[in-house]
Amino acid sequence: MNPLNPIEFRRQCHMVTDFVVDYYQNIEKYPVRSQVKPGYLFQSSPDCAPMYPESIEAILKDVQKDIIPGITHWQSPNFFAYFPASLNTASFLGEMLLNGFSVVGFNWESSPAATELEIIVMEWLLKLLQLPQSFSTSSNQGGGGGVLLGSTCEAFICTLLAAKEKTLDQIGRENTENLAVYCSDQTHFSFHKSAKVVGIKPENVRQVLTTRSTNFELSPESLDEMIKRDLEDGLIPIYLCATVGTTSTTAVDPLGPLCEVASKYNMWVHVDAAYAGSACICPEFRHFLDGVEGASSFSFNAHKWLLTNLACCCLWVKDKASFTKPLSTTSELMANESTESGKVVDYKDWQISLARRFQALKLWMVLRSYGTIALREYIRKHVKMAKDFEGLVNMDARFEIMAPRYFSMMLLESVNATGRVYMTHSVVGGVYVIRFSVGASLTEDRHVNMAWELVQGEATSLLGEPRPETTSNGED
Amino acid sequence: MNPLNPIEFRRQCHMVTDFVVDYYQNIEKYPVRSQVKPGYLFQSSPDCAPMYPESIEAILKDVQKDIIPGITHWQSPNFFAYFPASLNTASFLGEMLLNGFSVVGFNWESSPAATELEIIVMEWLLKLLQLPQSFSTSSNQGGGGGVLLGSTCEAFICTLLAAKEKTLDQIGRENTENLAVYCSDQTHFSFHKSAKVVGIKPENVRQVLTTRSTNFELSPESLDEMIKRDLEDGLIPIYLCATVGTTSTTAVDPLGPLCEVASKYNMWVHVDAAYAGSACICPEFRHFLDGVEGASSFSFNAHKWLLTNLACCCLWVKDKASFTKPLSTTSELMANESTESGKVVDYKDWQISLARRFQALKLWMVLRSYGTIALREYIRKHVKMAKDFEGLVNMDARFEIMAPRYFSMMLLESVNATGRVYMTHSVVGGVYVIRFSVGASLTEDRHVNMAWELVQGEATSLLGEPRPETTSNGED
Repeated sequence: MNPLNPIEFRRQCHMVTDFVVDYYQNIEKYPVRSQVKPGYLFQSSPDCAPMYPESIEAILKDVQKDIIPGITHWQSPNFFAYFPASLNTASFLGEMLLNGFSVVGFNWESSPAATELEIIVMEWLLKLLQLPQSFSTSSNQGGGGGVLLGSTCEAFICTLLAAKEKTLDQIGRENTENLAVYCSDQTHFSFHKSAKVVGIKPENVRQVLTTRSTNFELSPESLDEMIKRDLEDGLIPIYLCATVGTTSTTAVDPLGPLCEVASKYNMWVHVDAAYAGSACICPEFRHFLDGVEGASSFSFNAHKWLLTNLACCCLWVKDKASFTKPLSTTSELMANESTESGKVVDYKDWQISLARRFQALKLWMVLRSYGTIALREYIRKHVKMAKDFEGLVNMDARFEIMAPRYFSMMLLESVNATGRVYMTHSVVGGVYVIRFSVGASLTEDRHVNMAWELVQGEATSLLGEPRPETTSNGED
Repeated sequence: MNPLNPIEFRRQCHMVTDFVVDYYQNIEKYPVRSQVKPGYLFQSSPDCAPMYPESIEAILKDVQKDIIPGITHWQSPNFFAYFPASLNTASFLGEMLLNGFSVVGFNWESSPAATELEIIVMEWLLKLLQLPQSFSTSSNQGGGGGVLLGSTCEAFICTLLAAKEKTLDQIGRENTENLAVYCSDQTHFSFHKSAKVVGIKPENVRQVLTTRSTNFELSPESLDEMIKRDLEDGLIPIYLCATVGTTSTTAVDPLGPLCEVASKYNMWVHVDAAYAGSACICPEFRHFLDGVEGASSFSFNAHKWLLTNLACCCLWVKDKASFTKPLSTTSELMANESTESGKVVDYKDWQISLARRFQALKLWMVLRSYGTIALREYIRKHVKMAKDFEGLVNMDARFEIMAPRYFSMMLLESVNATGRVYMTHSVVGGVYVIRFSVGASLTEDRHVNMAWELVQGEATSLLGEPRPETTSNGED
């Protein structure tokens, strides 16, 4: 057994490449959401790992026969569910290279290129997003910095820890039980989970209610009032999570005024732009980040809408000393001259785990392969498709748009009929809604138009003939 | 811009495949540990992302020129540092496929195949490792289950949360400050970090001291005594981390007696076999896991020594209800019929983050492509090479073996000379030691012999002529 036989490696890689290309060329033939029933794969699968080797040909045959039917096709041009997880050639090649090298870049010495390329791409992105210089790694003396994490959850956990440790250092550990963190009722549920992980009591994750009349934005006045009441009740506010582009409606919280409120109470402000952050590389959308300079940290997922596949969450912090303090470890096992010189970044102290993949390589390949101009055009194309869809919806009085469309996602008030395309739902302001989210690499105008025709057709068959003057509230 | 143009996709994938093959064929020409100086990459890199597209040819040229010199070659056959991060053809192809599909398998519905294949490979591995049936997903009614996580750190955090929540549910949240967790002074530092993340006070991470005379194993008697004293001091023991194959010396903690002690105090016992777990697929090494049936959870990293590249930590738990309780989230965004039916596993409730890659696919491809017999032979080959190295060391009186060699790693008492190969060090029992860890896919006998010749040569040039009757203690 030679697990890296070059002849076999080459032959099998070429074979899998062709398999993946065929998959993309046939992707529209598959149902977007898998139609299998629970347990389908257990029936065709043996109970034990095989004793003897099986050929790549046999394995790929099973992938085609057993795996593909059980896949929900996130790369389908008819996938309008959740948020996109956009794949593309450059990112795929980046993954091939990083898996080929398979370095474990926990500190600088374990692979200097992995650390330094990460600093470089994070500086490139900082400039593309026009983030404040205070978030830059190159700002020297204390200052900030960027890091690639596995998920927004990890970004929440690491920044929550920093806020918690900073506060407890000042006021004493006996106050742990009273620490409180703030968000809106539109904040992603991962924030609640993250707060629980770091030991914030669930009842101390304080949710400001939003309303449809203010587009589901977090109100700075309501936040201030809530904090004042909480202080009287003995709570200690330490952290605010503001969102640019919420998951249900892509609401944009007003960063400037929120940071002003938070600064009165010396709170850490994290800006979660997981989905919408990518759009802000276009100058015309950058205003959604106005006020971010007042925040303590900012993150977005390049793996959602910036053509970089899972997992690639970009996080910047303003105060790297506070950020890395609770995450830093020292061990004789990791001791080395470069670390001791103080001249290098050891990213193990910027994340939860020790091991880390060479993620920067794929982001670097995406940014170079497409270039800024084409990436902006790519974002604009999706936004335009969602806007066109909005136009279609507006022409049909049976449907109502529940919240403004800023980016490439919009909402349809549901007729409780999901189409053969894949969309997901949410409940906002008590109303059950369909989310229509554009962003797959292969999506073109025709897919959007077909999706709308499907939704209209479902509505018609449910309601009978179109009733152009009635607006259903769908609150059944 | 068509980010998934099939013609370009195919052409560029073939080009990168050839690049990676060339890399492996040349890997022995590169210095194992990168020789660059801090900041080397900043000099050759532009300040901003490019505006216009660059060709794959130009990018690969830069990878060769700028990235490869900054890589520490974990796949080199002369890499004996840390623990292996073994790559191979099957796992590389698995990564290609899973990146090609790019599904985000947070729940069953988002891609049924991702969830069901994970259950299947975890059952296969459970059988290969002869883990108790109580860890099996198929044990029904309550029972256990397996999950693929990103790292041992994540396994620690998730199981610590379960132990914490379970205890606090019983005795009340006001006791959080007194919760204590146990390990040895040989336990990996990630455990301390994980305990800090979930809010265990650093002074309540209680370390039992080990000694060379007992091969750095965690003594059940010492543990029992420590817990008894801690109880008197008002601490509440909730969790024990036992290790099979510690990082410094591959010490094996006695699982059976440790679980007996822990059960007296109703503690969660986690067995961390990050490195050595893979060896236990060989019947002759399985005895190192004896007693695991008394544990609450068990994890090992397939990405270390089971030919599956980063990141792939396999975790099993006995009580999945307690395990998933603190990690479960409900949200209208994720609501779906399959989840409500109770017939499916939603892996988002078995890990920290929401997003997850289709990791099972690469593990499945490794297990099928090589088959059990060849995987065992692969492990045995490395163990034999380490044993041969031990033989060489034993013949040179200037060196002393600091701890027994069980697997494929052993220790040399240092002469403070590191070779041109890459080994790392540790400090055990107050002695500075070199770790010699075998496990790269490409390593053959000749690499091990050359490594030894290098170490001997360095020793000779440092000490003058060989002094066969003297044993240096190296405690300078």
